[in-house]
Amino acid sequence: MGNGRLFTVRGMGPVLIVAFLLGGGAALAADPTGAATLKADPGLPVDYVWVLVCGFLVMFMQAGFALVEAGFCRSKNATNLLTKNLMDFVVGSLAFWALGYALITGTDWKGLLGTSGFFLAGEGYDVGNYLSFFWQMVFAATAATIVSGAVAERIKFQAYLLYSVAITAFIYPVYAHWVWGGGWLSKLPFGLGHLDFAGSGVVHAVGGLVGLAGAIVLGPRFGKFDRNGKPRAIPGHNIPLAALGVFILWFGWYGFNPGSTFSAHHLRISVIAVNTTLAASAASLTALLLVLAKTKKFDLGMALNGVLAGLVAITAPCAWVESWAAVLIGVIAGIILVAGVYFLEAIGVDDPVGAVPVHGFNGLWGLIAVGLFADGTYGNYSIQPPFVKGLFYGGGAGQLVAQLIGAGVLFVWAFGMGLLLFKVLDALIGIRVSPREEIQGLDLFEHGTPAYPEFYTVRR
Amino acid sequence: MGNGRLFTVRGMGPVLIVAFLLGGGAALAADPTGAATLKADPGLPVDYVWVLVCGFLVMFMQAGFALVEAGFCRSKNATNLLTKNLMDFVVGSLAFWALGYALITGTDWKGLLGTSGFFLAGEGYDVGNYLSFFWQMVFAATAATIVSGAVAERIKFQAYLLYSVAITAFIYPVYAHWVWGGGWLSKLPFGLGHLDFAGSGVVHAVGGLVGLAGAIVLGPRFGKFDRNGKPRAIPGHNIPLAALGVFILWFGWYGFNPGSTFSAHHLRISVIAVNTTLAASAASLTALLLVLAKTKKFDLGMALNGVLAGLVAITAPCAWVESWAAVLIGVIAGIILVAGVYFLEAIGVDDPVGAVPVHGFNGLWGLIAVGLFADGTYGNYSIQPPFVKGLFYGGGAGQLVAQLIGAGVLFVWAFGMGLLLFKVLDALIGIRVSPREEIQGLDLFEHGTPAYPEFYTVRR
Amino acid sequence: MGNGRLFTVRGMGPVLIVAFLLGGGAALAADPTGAATLKADPGLPVDYVWVLVCGFLVMFMQAGFALVEAGFCRSKNATNLLTKNLMDFVVGSLAFWALGYALITGTDWKGLLGTSGFFLAGEGYDVGNYLSFFWQMVFAATAATIVSGAVAERIKFQAYLLYSVAITAFIYPVYAHWVWGGGWLSKLPFGLGHLDFAGSGVVHAVGGLVGLAGAIVLGPRFGKFDRNGKPRAIPGHNIPLAALGVFILWFGWYGFNPGSTFSAHHLRISVIAVNTTLAASAASLTALLLVLAKTKKFDLGMALNGVLAGLVAITAPCAWVESWAAVLIGVIAGIILVAGVYFLEAIGVDDPVGAVPVHGFNGLWGLIAVGLFADGTYGNYSIQPPFVKGLFYGGGAGQLVAQLIGAGVLFVWAFGMGLLLFKVLDALIGIRVSPREEIQGLDLFEHGTPAYPEFYTVRR
Repeated sequence: MGNGRLFTVRGMGPVLIVAFLLGGGAALAADPTGAATLKADPGLPVDYVWVLVCGFLVMFMQAGFALVEAGFCRSKNATNLLTKNLMDFVVGSLAFWALGYALITGTDWKGLLGTSGFFLAGEGYDVGNYLSFFWQMVFAATAATIVSGAVAERIKFQAYLLYSVAITAFIYPVYAHWVWGGGWLSKLPFGLGHLDFAGSGVVHAVGGLVGLAGAIVLGPRFGKFDRNGKPRAIPGHNIPLAALGVFILWFGWYGFNPGSTFSAHHLRISVIAVNTTLAASAASLTALLLVLAKTKKFDLGMALNGVLAGLVAITAPCAWVESWAAVLIGVIAGIILVAGVYFLEAIGVDDPVGAVPVHGFNGLWGLIAVGLFADGTYGNYSIQPPFVKGLFYGGGAGQLVAQLIGAGVLFVWAFGMGLLLFKVLDALIGIRVSPREEIQGLDLFEHGTPAYPEFYTVRR
Repeated sequence: MGNGRLFTVRGMGPVLIVAFLLGGGAALAADPTGAATLKADPGLPVDYVWVLVCGFLVMFMQAGFALVEAGFCRSKNATNLLTKNLMDFVVGSLAFWALGYALITGTDWKGLLGTSGFFLAGEGYDVGNYLSFFWQMVFAATAATIVSGAVAERIKFQAYLLYSVAITAFIYPVYAHWVWGGGWLSKLPFGLGHLDFAGSGVVHAVGGLVGLAGAIVLGPRFGKFDRNGKPRAIPGHNIPLAALGVFILWFGWYGFNPGSTFSAHHLRISVIAVNTTLAASAASLTALLLVLAKTKKFDLGMALNGVLAGLVAITAPCAWVESWAAVLIGVIAGIILVAGVYFLEAIGVDDPVGAVPVHGFNGLWGLIAVGLFADGTYGNYSIQPPFVKGLFYGGGAGQLVAQLIGAGVLFVWAFGMGLLLFKVLDALIGIRVSPREEIQGLDLFEHGTPAYPEFYTVRR
Repeated sequence: MGNGRLFTVRGMGPVLIVAFLLGGGAALAADPTGAATLKADPGLPVDYVWVLVCGFLVMFMQAGFALVEAGFCRSKNATNLLTKNLMDFVVGSLAFWALGYALITGTDWKGLLGTSGFFLAGEGYDVGNYLSFFWQMVFAATAATIVSGAVAERIKFQAYLLYSVAITAFIYPVYAHWVWGGGWLSKLPFGLGHLDFAGSGVVHAVGGLVGLAGAIVLGPRFGKFDRNGKPRAIPGHNIPLAALGVFILWFGWYGFNPGSTFSAHHLRISVIAVNTTLAASAASLTALLLVLAKTKKFDLGMALNGVLAGLVAITAPCAWVESWAAVLIGVIAGIILVAGVYFLEAIGVDDPVGAVPVHGFNGLWGLIAVGLFADGTYGNYSIQPPFVKGLFYGGGAGQLVAQLIGAGVLFVWAFGMGLLLFKVLDALIGIRVSPREEIQGLDLFEHGTPAYPEFYTVRR
């Protein structure tokens, strides 16, 4: 249990352990006031400030996802996409409070899931536990909202609400427990166990692969493929919105990655911030140049998704690599993005905003990159040895093996649970809107609110 | 004076008191450099970082208000709404610097208002006092900008400028002195005196009820009610803008509420952040479901305003309650919102963006909630006893009585001063634009700048 | 070297010096883990949090610039402006990593430029050095992105990419070395040497004056001046975008200015935040009233640019003046803005978004203001004497002379290098798009992506 990221807040150990292991033979009571916790470690305020401010930035990423998806889709579905992106956070935060958080951080049951701490009740009323909950909640909500893009413009809103509960209450928390809650993947006997610093896998690949399942079960939008199966571009209706969304996501990612130390006493946060930036830039430039070579145009959409691809890929390794490796990880992320977009179109999958290559494929790449580039300067959420070492720094293949196992398990779990969930929902209530609704737009049918009632628009 | 929130910064006491009680028999001089203040308490940097970063987030809420109001109104008035939201901060910060801040925090005169510290001059040139000013300023500007929505699409810009001065220089500061500046409401002999942690009342209800007065004095927009007085929907012109505005407000609220400890040494900030989130989510879901039951549509506008309603309601109690209470407070906030919107329409008041139910009614609800749900784990901006206890936690009715008195006084002051102000302005310069200007839109008449000069729009 | 801002992090001295003076006879090794750095100064975490969070805010200003420029230009070029604003950060961060950062902070060569530390390699792999790099990088990217507005709607994208490399890899870093890297301007024998707290000159005037050179070399857009040379207004296509951009910039500026202490142990950060606000407000109100007097309209565009003008002007003096001086500096900034806009139009220069008066002219004004208003309460990134004193506070003319010399040198360097760069680029690849492309819009020709493909727009 000692290697779970949730237990690593400097000096918070005793108090937190009490809070998490509710019902265990706790020596210290929960501390809702915070006075005893402060007294036990007077250096905690800067850690709380760091974690909370970073958490606020992660929450703000919800706005970024909303704008990217709305901007890259058609105006007739903009209200629908905004509503989905709002309500997955609304419903997700409540479901995670009731159930999900306990599954990640509660008393471990056979390495599979946590079994205590529902509703933050009882001993859960503790400043350290609330801090941990806040952080975990904004991460769970990020995983949830990624899927929205892959299933855009054709899923029933009601089905999306139910999906939001399922991912934040169960699918995400179980896998997060395996990696971050002291579960079995964190204890693999290779390297330091499976590692995922800020969630390339736990958050992004889980979201991206559940999204892939959703896109497959739903089938493509009308008009995405012609009679011969040739893909057609469906341009986004508001590029400034999408661009702003990416800027907001980039900004928020500075909370996501550096904040994942869960401690400001790890001055390594500066390295994480730099790596995050350079990987994003390298991936964006790579994607721009690849498409330029093919089309002779400077494609903003691909450059924007390139930023996101680089950010996703660096999310797992950001704490363990140095700057040149961040750049290289980004370059490869850009290649994976472009190849992934073409690959999905080639196999007939319609992912309207590119969520699967960005979050799914690059999330898996980020996990693997840890096993290659980790340079032995930072530990498992620790500035004390043992440090994480990958193949290229003399660490042998151990860490890489742990990363590959984790990536494989993730794929099976997320894609499998995604298929199961959307198939079951489809059988129960139907998940795709009617053809008439799809053609006229979901905004009027589901929400009664057109996004731009005063503007003349072309119907696409 | 010891129970005013302005004097509670850990360890800043001596220096701050000097700064505030300008002209008093101060033993320490003001410290514009900050070196002496740091030496007196080496733990202050993290408190300064916390208060400033949270204050930056609160300032950013101005953008949120601007977008919500512009998005929920018609395109012909978008420039006007943006200009109002910009200039109320511009004018308001200057007026608050000259006058308002001194009325809140200056030497107390009979519990009614402060009388010193104008222009941050003389002994006011002190790092602690500037910190306090920055915080109070962004709060005053929030109260000011709330009104803009209630009086939207028909008020003269000149009148709005004068109103902005009046609220930031006088109406808001006087009431804030009563609650936060050591004034008479803070000393009520019930419970721990009237309490309002982050300003459900002081900021939001004051803004919302001055806005109600403005909406009444102005009368409804042309077309809002038909000949039989039946309300008609006037849809917002740009829903993505409005949604982004709500996301920004939610993000900024994490500065507003947790930052109101004015100290990072209160680790209770984690509890505040969680409560803030859960109340917002609960209110939004409640509002969505209530409207769904009535209209069979998933109404994004109501879900967005639901978020704000929950945020406003939890603002007063956020530091004193636990998570289940935050959820319940949010559920009730969602009900109040929906009922309030229908109530205002029923009595013929036109509040274009729902500012009155969101900020006014739910601000009052937040004050009352303190008296019901405060659970005895946090004090009056203090982690030391006495702790605040409400009716449901064995605290008796004392705190509830103090809250009801404060809410009643607030209603009389804010609504009364609002009526007085707008009536006087109307008599002096007229506050409503001409019918021709209202129909053609304020953008061209007042500002000469259409918001979207290249787009074809329907005139509504 | 002791007076360079890069070496002033409290307690980081020994470690940082090693990192910066790569190859020097370092006694301490670089510290990529951060454990040794923390042990040497346990108070550092709050400084890291402060610098990083402020740096995140500065990075977010990229979004602000993108929206202001896109909103104030025509819809046919919106994608182009967004792509420019994204790619200058993408390309600029990589170029600054490879070259620029070393030129600022590397081993000084004759006071002219740094000569070590490329690619953050070798001894550069250190938590303190990465922190410094992150901060300097977001500043370099700000200088780069300013130019985009001045050359908008007519520059070839390819030329803009090359320009982005040139400014972040060479033009900006060399001048920054002179002022902030221990170069010759910082050692002028007047006052405390040339001073520029957060970069009115180093960042904004450099960007603004390179932009002026670009605007001159490119010539005005078709239709900006009629046959008699009379200027014609070309209205911005999306005012809400532009307004949001300014709010984001204002928000981000709270990172830019207060964060420039590079230490949270300078409690003076509260004074800086207040001065930043008041100058922005005063400049905006001044600009609004000046245009009102002339046109009888409340001009939002000028009020928005007024905010930016005030922010630019206060950026150099913000740490050294008190609140009344901040207000006065802002009032003068508003006058300079309005006069500057008319002046540029009078001499036939087309600066589509007003970047030159905002950043160029007001950047120079900010430098001069230091020599006038510095009040002797804060030192050279130090809370210990000697403190900076200007003419109006009995400091004599020394500081003013240093400021005027620096401003003159800056003008020659930035404007001269800008002319050289754009002339050379023009000779090599041509920097202006074809007339047909300019009239039909750059979005389709360069990017293949219209910004609003579903909306009917007027072609302007």
